[in-house]
Amino acid sequence: MPSLDEDLIALLGPDRVSVSDADLATHSTDKWFASHPPQVVVHAKCVEDVSKTLRYANEHGIPVTPQGARVGYVGGAVPSKGGIALSVFGMNRILEINTADGVAVVEPGVITGDLQKAVRELGWFYPPDPASLKECSLGGNIATNAGGPRCLKYGVTRHYVLGLEAVLADGSIVKAGGRCHKNKTGFDLVGLMVGSEGMLGVVTQATLRLIPHPPMRAMLSAGFASFAEAANAVQRILNSGFLPSALEIADKFTLRAAREYLGESVTPQGDAHLLVEIDGHEPSVIGELGLLAKLVRDLGCLDLQEAIGEEACERFWKLRREFSYSLRNTGLIKLNEDIVVPRSKLVDLVEFAERLQAEHGFAVASFGHAGDGNIHVNIMVPTMDDPLIRERAEVALDQLFRQIIAWNGAITGEHGVGIAKKRWWREAVSTAAHETHLRVKAALDPKGILNPGKFLE
Amino acid sequence: MPSLDEDLIALLGPDRVSVSDADLATHSTDKWFASHPPQVVVHAKCVEDVSKTLRYANEHGIPVTPQGARVGYVGGAVPSKGGIALSVFGMNRILEINTADGVAVVEPGVITGDLQKAVRELGWFYPPDPASLKECSLGGNIATNAGGPRCLKYGVTRHYVLGLEAVLADGSIVKAGGRCHKNKTGFDLVGLMVGSEGMLGVVTQATLRLIPHPPMRAMLSAGFASFAEAANAVQRILNSGFLPSALEIADKFTLRAAREYLGESVTPQGDAHLLVEIDGHEPSVIGELGLLAKLVRDLGCLDLQEAIGEEACERFWKLRREFSYSLRNTGLIKLNEDIVVPRSKLVDLVEFAERLQAEHGFAVASFGHAGDGNIHVNIMVPTMDDPLIRERAEVALDQLFRQIIAWNGAITGEHGVGIAKKRWWREAVSTAAHETHLRVKAALDPKGILNPGKFLE
Repeated sequence: MPSLDEDLIALLGPDRVSVSDADLATHSTDKWFASHPPQVVVHAKCVEDVSKTLRYANEHGIPVTPQGARVGYVGGAVPSKGGIALSVFGMNRILEINTADGVAVVEPGVITGDLQKAVRELGWFYPPDPASLKECSLGGNIATNAGGPRCLKYGVTRHYVLGLEAVLADGSIVKAGGRCHKNKTGFDLVGLMVGSEGMLGVVTQATLRLIPHPPMRAMLSAGFASFAEAANAVQRILNSGFLPSALEIADKFTLRAAREYLGESVTPQGDAHLLVEIDGHEPSVIGELGLLAKLVRDLGCLDLQEAIGEEACERFWKLRREFSYSLRNTGLIKLNEDIVVPRSKLVDLVEFAERLQAEHGFAVASFGHAGDGNIHVNIMVPTMDDPLIRERAEVALDQLFRQIIAWNGAITGEHGVGIAKKRWWREAVSTAAHETHLRVKAALDPKGILNPGKFLE
Repeated sequence: MPSLDEDLIALLGPDRVSVSDADLATHSTDKWFASHPPQVVVHAKCVEDVSKTLRYANEHGIPVTPQGARVGYVGGAVPSKGGIALSVFGMNRILEINTADGVAVVEPGVITGDLQKAVRELGWFYPPDPASLKECSLGGNIATNAGGPRCLKYGVTRHYVLGLEAVLADGSIVKAGGRCHKNKTGFDLVGLMVGSEGMLGVVTQATLRLIPHPPMRAMLSAGFASFAEAANAVQRILNSGFLPSALEIADKFTLRAAREYLGESVTPQGDAHLLVEIDGHEPSVIGELGLLAKLVRDLGCLDLQEAIGEEACERFWKLRREFSYSLRNTGLIKLNEDIVVPRSKLVDLVEFAERLQAEHGFAVASFGHAGDGNIHVNIMVPTMDDPLIRERAEVALDQLFRQIIAWNGAITGEHGVGIAKKRWWREAVSTAAHETHLRVKAALDPKGILNPGKFLE
C-alpha cells in the first residue's frame, strides 16, 4: 500500500510534497509554544492543489492543518493531530490592483505589508495593520480576522474582504461575495470564513476593499501620572467627536521596562502613556492635532509631544514597538494575552493586573488598543520549563480570563482561540453558541478533517 | 384537535396571538408586490415568546415568517407559505445606551431613526442610514444588512453589530458576540445572522457599536452635462484622498422628472447630478469643502452649490429625496432594483439602462450610491396589472440582471434577495456557493420552517 506522501506525490507531483526533516520541523509550529509535526507538508501553488489535497484527505479521514506565514500567537497553525500541513504560503501573487473599482485581488500567501506598500504607491490604502504586518500573510489575517491599532477607525480584516475563493473540506471550490463594495446576495459566507481559523475551509484567493489613502497623518504622545488619567483621556477624546486612527495606551510596568532598556530621556514621563494618531487632509490634520493637544494638556498630562507627517509618526510607532522589545529585554517570558474589555473597564483591568502581580509575584505589563478595549496583557514569567512556575502562571491566567469573562469581555480580540485559549473557550461562550459552532462545523466539514485539535474539541 | 391559534394562545396567552382579518391582512405583505396571508399572527413581547413559538412550530413543521416593521422592498417578510407571522415589532425598547463602552443595546422593533436620535443627543453616532430610517426597524436592518448613503465611509449594518441574541428554529436561544468592539472568539455567528433574511434565526436583542458623532457636516451639489462626467468626478474625488460620508449620483431621467415635479429653478442643471457629503470637526470640514469644490469646478460642472451645517445639508438631502417623489409623480410604477456594479462600471450601467429604455420603451431612472457602485435602477412601467406590459417588464429586468451578473456585479446591495430577486439567485451565485447555503440552512433549520418560500427554494 502506498504511503501518504506517495499518494500525495502521485496526486500533486513531487515538487508539491515534502517529508524532509527540515520541512516537517518548520511546519510543526507557529509563534506560540505548542509544536506537533505533520506527517507530510504540501506546498500548494494553486487552488487545484488545495482542492485535490482536501478531496483526498476527506476521503481518507486525514487531518489537514492549513498554514500561511505561521506567525500566529495561539498555535492555530500547529498540526496537533499530525496528518497534512497544507501550506498556501507559496501562493503569494498580487493578482490585481484596481483603483477604479477600489479592489485588490490576492493569493493568501501575500505578506500584508507588501500589499499595503503596493497600493500605497497608487495613493490607496489597505488599513488592517497587525503588528506583524511585515511577516504575516493575508490568508492568516483572514483566518484570524486580524486587527491592529488602526482598526479603531477603520475596522478589522473582515471589513475589507469583499470576496473569497475557498476550498471546503470535501475539495469543493466555493466563490463567495465578489468585487462589489456592497453585496447582500445570500448569507454572509465571506464573513463565516473570515476568522474561522482554518476550521471551515482554506482560502485560496481574496478580493479586498481598498480606500483612498489619507494624504497626511499626525500623532500625539502623552505621559500621564496614572493609568486612570490616561484612560479618562481616551473617553474624553472620543466624547469630543474624535475618532482617531489609533489610540494606544501603555501601563506603568511597560514604561519601567522601557526606561531600563531605552533610557530615561526617551521614555515618556509618568505611569501611563497615550498615543493618539489622526489622519486626513493636511490642513484638517494640523487643525485637529491642535484641538487634541489642548484637550490632552487640559487633562493634566505630564509631557506632550507632537509628530506631523509620515516620518515623525514612524518614530513614535518605533518607540511604541520598543516597548515590546523592552519587555523581552527583561529576560522574562511574555505570556501575551490579547484580551478585550468593554472600554469603560480599562482602569479595572489594570488594577486587576496589579492585584495578580501582587498575588503571584509575576510582573504584568499591559498595553494596547485602548480605543476598542483590546489590551495586550503580558504576564511576565521567568520560565515555562519549571513545572511549579508554569502551574502558577496557568493559575494567574485562569484568574485573568475568568475576570475578563465576568466583565463581558472577550478572551481574544485579534489573535484567535487556537490552542492557546482553548481551555477558556467553553466558559467564554454559552452552551447554545458552542452547539451552534458544532452544527456549522459539521455542515461544512462533517468528518472534522480541517485543523483538528483546536477549540471545538 | 385544537387549532393552531388555540395552541399558540395556550402557549403564549391570548394577548400575543391574533387571527383577526385586519391583522392577517396587515401581516401579509411588506413594501413589495407580493402578498400571502399567514394563518395566525404572533405579537412577541419577549425572547421567551419567540422561543416558545419556534419550538412549537419546529415540532409541528409549521412555517414561521419573522416580521419587523415590514417596510422591506423584496417581499422578504411575506408569509409565502402561510403558517405563523412572528412579529417582533412590539419588542421595541432601547435597553441601554452606554457611551463609555460605545454601545447601545436594543430590541429588534426599535425604529432605526429613533436610536440615531437618542444617541445623537449624547454626542454619539449610529451611522447606518437606510432611506426608510424613520419607519424601518433595527431587526429588519439586521436581517437585510441594511446600508444607505453613509455606508461609503462608515460601512453597513454588519459593521455595527457587536452582539446578538437570536432564537434558532428549534427555539434555542443563542447569544453571539458581545459588547466588545473587537472579538475573535469563535466563528462569526453574528455575521452569519446579519443579512440572513429571517432564514437562520430570529434576532431578539442586539448590541450595537456607537462611534463619536462628527460635530459638523457639509455638502456639495453639482450638476454635470453628462453622467460620464459625474462618474469621472466620483473617481477623481476618491483618487484625491477623500472618502466622503456620501457620494450620490442621479441620471438624466431622474433630473427630468425632478424638473417636471419641482420646477426648473430648484433642479440642478445638466444631465447628471452629484451630491458629496463630508463630516468631521468644523475647521476640517470647511477646509476640505473648499478643496472639493475646486476639484469639482475644475472638472467642468455646470452649477455648484455648497451647504454647511446640519440644516443646509438637510435641504440638499430633501431635494435628493424629492427625486424619488418626482419619479412617483410621473404616474408610472417604479421597479426599484438596488443592483451593484464594480465602481468602474457606472457609466456602462447607465448606457445599458438607456439601451433598455430604447428597446422596451420603458423609461429607466438610475440614481444612488455612486461611491460603492450601489445604484437604484428604476424601470418605470405604466402598470403591472396588464399581463403584456408585465411580461415585457420582466424581460427588461432579466436583461438588466444578466448584465449585472456578467459584470461581476451584485443583484442586491442592501434590500436583500427575498422573493423579488429569487429568480436571479441561481445565476448570481455558483452551484458550490448555493450548496453551501443549503448546508448552513440545514444545519441551523433542518426542517426549513424559518421564512420558507424565499431564495433558497
